[in-house]
Parts: sequence; C-alpha cells; structure tokens
Amino acid sequence: MRKKVVGVIGGHSCTKEVEEIAQELGKKLAKVVEILVCGGLGGTMKAVCQGFKTASGVTIGIIPSYDKNDANKYVDIVIPTGLGLARNVVVVKSADVVVALPGEAGTLSEIAYCLQFGIPVISLGLWDIKGVIKLKTVDEAIKKVKELISKSVASRDCPRRGLSHGKIRTE
Amino acid sequence: MRKKVVGVIGGHSCTKEVEEIAQELGKKLAKVVEILVCGGLGGTMKAVCQGFKTASGVTIGIIPSYDKNDANKYVDIVIPTGLGLARNVVVVKSADVVVALPGEAGTLSEIAYCLQFGIPVISLGLWDIKGVIKLKTVDEAIKKVKELISKSVASRDCPRRGLSHGKIRTE
Amino acid sequence: MRKKVVGVIGGHSCTKEVEEIAQELGKKLAKVVEILVCGGLGGTMKAVCQGFKTASGVTIGIIPSYDKNDANKYVDIVIPTGLGLARNVVVVKSADVVVALPGEAGTLSEIAYCLQFGIPVISLGLWDIKGVIKLKTVDEAIKKVKELISKSVASRDCPRRGLSHGKIRTE
Amino acid sequence: MRKKVVGVIGGHSCTKEVEEIAQELGKKLAKVVEILVCGGLGGTMKAVCQGFKTASGVTIGIIPSYDKNDANKYVDIVIPTGLGLARNVVVVKSADVVVALPGEAGTLSEIAYCLQFGIPVISLGLWDIKGVIKLKTVDEAIKKVKELISKSVASRDCPRRGLSHGKIRTE
Repeated sequence: MRKKVVGVIGGHSCTKEVEEIAQELGKKLAKVVEILVCGGLGGTMKAVCQGFKTASGVTIGIIPSYDKNDANKYVDIVIPTGLGLARNVVVVKSADVVVALPGEAGTLSEIAYCLQFGIPVISLGLWDIKGVIKLKTVDEAIKKVKELISKSVASRDCPRRGLSHGKIRTE
Repeated sequence: MRKKVVGVIGGHSCTKEVEEIAQELGKKLAKVVEILVCGGLGGTMKAVCQGFKTASGVTIGIIPSYDKNDANKYVDIVIPTGLGLARNVVVVKSADVVVALPGEAGTLSEIAYCLQFGIPVISLGLWDIKGVIKLKTVDEAIKKVKELISKSVASRDCPRRGLSHGKIRTE
Repeated sequence: MRKKVVGVIGGHSCTKEVEEIAQELGKKLAKVVEILVCGGLGGTMKAVCQGFKTASGVTIGIIPSYDKNDANKYVDIVIPTGLGLARNVVVVKSADVVVALPGEAGTLSEIAYCLQFGIPVISLGLWDIKGVIKLKTVDEAIKKVKELISKSVASRDCPRRGLSHGKIRTE
Repeated sequence: MRKKVVGVIGGHSCTKEVEEIAQELGKKLAKVVEILVCGGLGGTMKAVCQGFKTASGVTIGIIPSYDKNDANKYVDIVIPTGLGLARNVVVVKSADVVVALPGEAGTLSEIAYCLQFGIPVISLGLWDIKGVIKLKTVDEAIKKVKELISKSVASRDCPRRGLSHGKIRTE
C-alpha cells in the first residue's frame, strides 16, 4: 500500500534553537507519518532526520550530488540525484505535505514549488508568503499534518488534472 | 567568443500593461545584450521575446516539456528540457543577469534560485525580496543590466569557487 | 543505518515469460536486499515490485511524471520527479547494484549510465554490452547481487573520487 | 523563425584522428545548419565546435556543471544545467538530428535517448545499434543531415503526439 510521505525543508545550517525544534518535529512527525523526505544534508535536515529515527520512522534524503556520503547519517535511503538545485523540485513533489523550517534562498525555492504544485506547506514561524499555512508550535504543525495527510490520500483517488509540463498552475 | 546572456522571468499569463512593459524591455535589452534566455512559453515570456526580436536579438526558450511546439513563435532556439519545473534552474543559471517581471510561484522559485546562485536579479515593480534589485522603469533596468553584464564578463575570469552540488551557497 | 538498495531496470511492456522472471527475481531479491528501486511504471517494473512485496521488501518507484498515480500499485514510495527520461539517471544512481531485464532504448540508456557511474550491472539474458555482467538464471543473479552488495558497503567508506559533474568518467 | 539545430555527440577525450574528423564535420555542418548543440566540454565536442565556428555557425554547449568556464572556448552560448549526466537528455532533445562520433558510455546513453525520442541519429563508423543510421564519411553524414533537417521542419507542423512523460515510446 502506498505510504504517506511528509517533507521537511529548511536551511543546511541552523541555530541550536532551530535544531532542537527540528528534532522535536521529526520525533513527533514519525508518530503520524511513515516516511520522511528531505534534502538529506546537514542543519535542519540532519536534525529532523535524527528526530524521525528516534521514533522508528524511515528517512529518505534526496541529495543534490551523486555521492551518497554527502547525506547525513540519519538518512536511511539516499537518492543521489546529481541534479544540483533542481533536486528541490523532487524533494517537495515527493511529499504529500511539507513543513518549512527557517532557511534561506533554497528553502524559498522549495516553498515556491509547493505553491505551484498545490502541495500544502506549513511554515513554523519564519516564512510569511501568501498561500503558506503559518503556525507557531510543533504541536500545531503535527495536528495540521495529520489532518492534511488524511485528505491527501482521498485526493489521490481523483488527481488534479491540468497540471502538466506545458500548462503549469500558478496561483 | 562567449556571448552575453540576459534572462527574463515572469508569469505565463499577464495583463495587457505588463505585456507592453515586457515588449519594451525586450526591445531595449536587445540593444545591450546579444542573447535572451527565458522560459519560452506565453505571457511575459512571449512578449519579451517579441520585443527582443524586433531589435534583431537571438532568443532562447528553455521549456518544461519535450515538445518544441510549446514554445512561443518568437523563440529562435528551443531547448525542450522535459524537466518540468526543474527547468527553472536552467533558465536562470544560463543568464549572466536576470530581470523579473510580475509572475507567481514559478517566478518566485526562479528569483530564489538567482539569490542562491548569486546571479544579480532586477525586479521591475513587484517582487520585494531581500537581495533583489528593485527598480521602477524599463530604462533604469536597461542601465543596470548594462552595468552588470560588463561586470559578469570580468568575474568569469575568476569564477566563484565553492559553489558545488554538495555545498550550496545560500545567502 | 544506511539501507542497501538494488535497482531493477527493464521494459514497461514485456512478455508473460519475462514477467514471470521479473516476479521471481523480485521475490528472491527481497531476501537479500531491503530496498528495491525501479522506474515505477508497468511491465517488468510492476512485476519485479510485485515479487519484492510478496517477500516484504520496500519498493521505491522513481517515475518520469509528477502524478503519483502513474506508479504501479506495488510501489510503496513514489518519487514523482517530473524529469521525463532524465529520471533514468536517478533510478540507477540510487542503486548499489543493478539488474537489467529485457527492455528497449530506455533500458539501454540506464545500462549506459551504470557503466559511466561504475555501478555494477547484471544482465539476465538479453544485453550484450562490454562491462555488463551477463548471467543466465535468476539464482545466479541473486548470488551475484549478494556478493556485490557486500562490496558496495565497504566501498562506501572510501568513495570513488574524481566523479564530478565537470569530469565524468567513461570507461 | 525557428532555427534548425544539429546535435553532435561523442567522447570528451578522443584520438587525433577523431579530432580531425570532428573538426571537418563541424566545418561542413555549419554550411547546412545554423545552430550546433553539443555537450560543450572537450575532445570531440571541442573539435566539432571549433570546426563549426570557422564557418560562422553558432555553437551551444549544454554542460553538466554550473560553471560556464567548464565549456570549451568555441562554445558561444553556455547552458550550465548543473544536472550532471541528466543533461545528456537535454543535449539530444534540443537537436533536430544528431551525429554520433566515437565515444563511450556517455555517448551510448545519448544514442539510446535519440532512439527513444525518435530523433534520427547518424553514426560515423563506430556505433552499431539497431535504429542508428550508419555512414562512413563526413560527406555522407552531411548529405543525410541536410535531408533529415528538411524533413524535421515539416514534421514540426504535425508533432508526434503520444510522447509524454507517462507514456514513453521505445522502439
């Protein structure tokens, strides 16, 4: 059966405070979703993977290079795309719902892709962009992920047509 | 000799007003840069190509699909990537300097990539993001492009190292 | 801990005979490797996933489109790349060892990528290309995969340097 | 007006003999096609670009890295994809007709993509694969390119439908 996938995006370097939030987020996400997908590198990505693993979740790291060793040690399955920054598209598109932690331009591009694809994206604190679901605490985010994941399964039975390469939705 | 390339990004649908700005921009850009690169589809992309062609510039359309017919008729050379939205990376990376016209999530992802790569990006009016050069008129944009293009040639002699797939700069 | 990944490549349509071989291969692979990666569509890809699932393995389908529904029903985790045929690179690069079943031009491109990356690729019957490990039976393939997977773990500690985007190895 | 594009593929290192053939090929191709697209690096790619430039053609180099400096000096317009080997797809898909010179696994993957897309591919000497047009001399290749280019224009008016990401043609 198709597994539910949560994506977490955020900077590859982060403060100690954000690191702790990412770990807590990962730990709690693992109780509501089986698979975590992320960019696979350090910073928030490493912290969220670490948290997700403590609760026995399976972590997938979709990395920009071809070298599996570039992935952090909490990644179970490495997808070494070699696509550079174009891998950002693959990270968010693989997820049924995305949570954005603080980051910089890379995270911004991923949020933009979520909006373009119509993938629900929750922001914890930082990002204030139209279309993003802004929440304040990890627990609020978990509750929202739970709710969105159940919807995403239903919507898979009746996929949004009209999203093709030639005609791309922008809201 | 390596040709100078300007990129223009913006929505694939646009108002009549933006369309006219895009055409004027294209026409004037062709007098300062030889090659225009864009996403190759309709809206602002079509209008800027049309303008660029009236002044005998060469236009390249880097499109998301595999079908060259998806490109607008003012595109001289079609690069049918088949990469979907991942082609956004290729569009901006091909440019020495980028001008952003109004658009939506797709344009936002392209601006984000410019910031991540360190490619100078000029916004005409709409986008208010840290790191973007905000200008008001087409003539101001042309002047800035001219200035940046000359710098870009110099910097090519001493490329920014440290930007690799594994270690991506985010500012 | 990093999971071992086997890749299986082959046509998206196949004869009943090849389908049975693919199912048997999948079933037996699941006893020696935890994760199967493939192109996620029909034909040999569907059959090998089906076999792998009967033995409780986890299947990943790296598909060309953005629509998770395009993946066959035996895929647990869909990576909807939207990259078109460029996804072939990602399929093989994700694997520690690859088994090639009969296919056509798409499978040929994947074998070529294996050779270029230095990923060991076993051919069951059909492909006769220098550098490919030709074997006759599923059991021979399983034995070889087992042997290669153990080596791949060791070699990960000392990655092949010199394979970068700018300087690509071709043997 | 849409420009005609010829693609040339081949190894990034080559013998003196192949280098001379590539130069001659480039020189003669420039008299029948306006635009040359290639992988943009050294070896056959550099030699064919050099030849094409002596006859005033415009050369495009679609390179695997993000660094425009990786392109050889005879490339007029660099498309720095950052896609690694996935750029092979973009190289051949940009061409209306492809000529293959000797190469290794990378060239093989490009030939495979030509076959899958239905792009006519001429082999000079080396490659003996079903579906490839084998010719012996540069002049034979030029004659064939001329013939195929005129056809490709006609066929653009009535594009082959059914080639989408989900349903890929393999012959």
